[in-house]
Amino acid sequence: MLLKNCRFIVTQNEKREILENRDILIEDKILEIGNNISKKDEVIDCSNKIVIPGLINCHTHIPMNLFRGVSDDKNLQRWLKEEIWPREAKLNEEMVYYGSLLAMGEMLLTGTTCFNDMYFFTENIAKAAKKAKMRCFLGCAMFDFFDSDKTDAEIEKEEKEINKILSLKNEKIKPSVTPHSSETCSDELLVKSSKLAEKYNLPIHIHLSETEKEVNECIKQRGKRPLSLFEDLGLLKNRFVGAHGIYLNEAEIEILNKKKGFIAYNPCSNAKLASGICSAKELKYLCIGTDSVASNNNLNLFEEMKFGVLLQRIKYNVDAMNAERIFDSATINGARALGIEKVVGSIESGKEADLVLIDKDNIFLNPNYNIISNLIYSFNGVVSDVLIGGEFVVRNRKILSFELEKILKKVNSFNFS
Amino acid sequence: MLLKNCRFIVTQNEKREILENRDILIEDKILEIGNNISKKDEVIDCSNKIVIPGLINCHTHIPMNLFRGVSDDKNLQRWLKEEIWPREAKLNEEMVYYGSLLAMGEMLLTGTTCFNDMYFFTENIAKAAKKAKMRCFLGCAMFDFFDSDKTDAEIEKEEKEINKILSLKNEKIKPSVTPHSSETCSDELLVKSSKLAEKYNLPIHIHLSETEKEVNECIKQRGKRPLSLFEDLGLLKNRFVGAHGIYLNEAEIEILNKKKGFIAYNPCSNAKLASGICSAKELKYLCIGTDSVASNNNLNLFEEMKFGVLLQRIKYNVDAMNAERIFDSATINGARALGIEKVVGSIESGKEADLVLIDKDNIFLNPNYNIISNLIYSFNGVVSDVLIGGEFVVRNRKILSFELEKILKKVNSFNFS
Repeated sequence: MLLKNCRFIVTQNEKREILENRDILIEDKILEIGNNISKKDEVIDCSNKIVIPGLINCHTHIPMNLFRGVSDDKNLQRWLKEEIWPREAKLNEEMVYYGSLLAMGEMLLTGTTCFNDMYFFTENIAKAAKKAKMRCFLGCAMFDFFDSDKTDAEIEKEEKEINKILSLKNEKIKPSVTPHSSETCSDELLVKSSKLAEKYNLPIHIHLSETEKEVNECIKQRGKRPLSLFEDLGLLKNRFVGAHGIYLNEAEIEILNKKKGFIAYNPCSNAKLASGICSAKELKYLCIGTDSVASNNNLNLFEEMKFGVLLQRIKYNVDAMNAERIFDSATINGARALGIEKVVGSIESGKEADLVLIDKDNIFLNPNYNIISNLIYSFNGVVSDVLIGGEFVVRNRKILSFELEKILKKVNSFNFS
Repeated sequence: MLLKNCRFIVTQNEKREILENRDILIEDKILEIGNNISKKDEVIDCSNKIVIPGLINCHTHIPMNLFRGVSDDKNLQRWLKEEIWPREAKLNEEMVYYGSLLAMGEMLLTGTTCFNDMYFFTENIAKAAKKAKMRCFLGCAMFDFFDSDKTDAEIEKEEKEINKILSLKNEKIKPSVTPHSSETCSDELLVKSSKLAEKYNLPIHIHLSETEKEVNECIKQRGKRPLSLFEDLGLLKNRFVGAHGIYLNEAEIEILNKKKGFIAYNPCSNAKLASGICSAKELKYLCIGTDSVASNNNLNLFEEMKFGVLLQRIKYNVDAMNAERIFDSATINGARALGIEKVVGSIESGKEADLVLIDKDNIFLNPNYNIISNLIYSFNGVVSDVLIGGEFVVRNRKILSFELEKILKKVNSFNFS
């Protein structure tokens, strides 16, 4: 397929090139970017489009789209215990499947092509991802609540889930290892998680320092802060994505920056639950996530990126964060966090064609003095087309890979009020 | 016209009623809200629509849409002096007219029907508002920079502008009195502004305590803080809208709450310029604004409302602000701030039919456990239809009152890089 005469291509390559009026030749991969490429089969006129790499959401619990708006006014601990866990107890496989498709619809319609998820019923999320044709990492959250009788069962279950996902032989759907947090996992479970990640060469995805309470309890129980604990137990040997990272001290930030540990910054969810602001400015390895819809309440990374910059400026000053850095966190750095920077995250020959097309004439993108600024600070996320692995999954604002109307009907038939 | 079988009507009336499956009969005003109203002429099926009152943006500088993305990384003082004022010096009437229409397009497409503006070339903004068929208050910013030779000329110019606007005899376009701020206006100019507002019974619209520097200079020069100064000089006798209100102390908050002085909260702009967070939680009389696109960088009040809640939770705690209160600030309380609460701000018989229709099946509004929550925290602002004074100005996401394509071409032909 030839994307002909793209008005702007925001490559996110090493040189941060923004190319004008170029063609992109693709199959599943990007074959060539150039001038006047001639090709006989399918040609798409992109003279009125801005092309960006598909966005990467590095921290999600996607079936929780089912819980949109059920509870908005409690802080994390009360919200989880009083509002979320009782509802999660009612979930079944069908609900998870349809809730996941709702979430994927929302991601696709706002330019996200890849996500990093931690939840339950992983097989059903994988089934939905296959249907939606999305790229993802899926992990089944592990916790033993410091009960050593449960530790091995959690690890065994995770390994089983990993093998199920590997057996799909779907290049786009990958497993990850997801111990829940320092609050819910014993040392033994964390060590075994680390070994599991090594054995299969998978990323670790874990909650980290989302509240002060979490940090204080870790110090009280274990004599060290969560990130030091994770380092000591081997979790930073592999690819590491810590979600939130709000209460990190200088020493912990140094560990992350030295060990190439990524933090997935979740500005909206952290503010909505009044948890605090991540020290994103200080972090060398930064990706971004929405967290779940239940605490956000959407999966629109464009909104997340804007608020991500704004919160850093509130925490520090106007120089703390800019549009370029936050856009990196949702593209090439998201790919690096997951270890797939050779596959996606920028528009370069040889990478998968995960591409998002945006109308140049969108009112929020005009006048156009600075494309990145307009995308981050002004655009509302309504993209026109999305390709994953060279295949259109959204065309003219319509999802092609599944019937959205049917999903809306289904999710409204469940009752989590 | 009959809006038939509206699925939900979020009235914003005293009882905060959300009506289901009702009809709204309108001419320029809302004539009746009820069941099975029969009418023979134009009937609009709204069985798949959520109807809300048109939103009110209480602090704008709308021609500055021309400066979207020209400078994003400086704090207020440097940004104004180095980036904005030199560009404003190049503005002419044509630019202001087209920049205003661009801004109005953006407001209409995101459900804003009324705005409160402070800028220059007021006549040209009025011309654009007439074209766009929007409701607004317009003021020409006054400043004498403490030069007593300039004071009377500023007041005379303002009075002339007021009379020009009044002579339009357009019920939707009203004047306001807009001394710029304590930083730029002498006591005499502020006193005379106050008298001008009294003479014509108009709202005062002024910048207030946007930075610490502004407050400290006021104390140094005048021995009191800006709000106390304004009170002493009579500015709070009339309707009063202070924009920003970030650095207010307890005594000032008490004055505002006692005198019914409104603060227009500008969360995005205040965060982007790293100015700080308004004490919105403490304020009894709260409306909301976007400030200009140059520091936001859009006029989407849905985004503003979400960040408005989130920032309060960062400043205080999870109880500081909720979806209902911020929605009030953009509807009925915006109307109260401008003194037009008997005209607009809620959906009630006798008020003008400023109505916004939103697709119930929008992915961000499903599942639907809490409409207000979904509108504030999840929705991206893409409304389907907008009526002002009973007339469609947006229909099926397309602006009817002017040609957007032409405006985009025009604004891209100007050069403010």
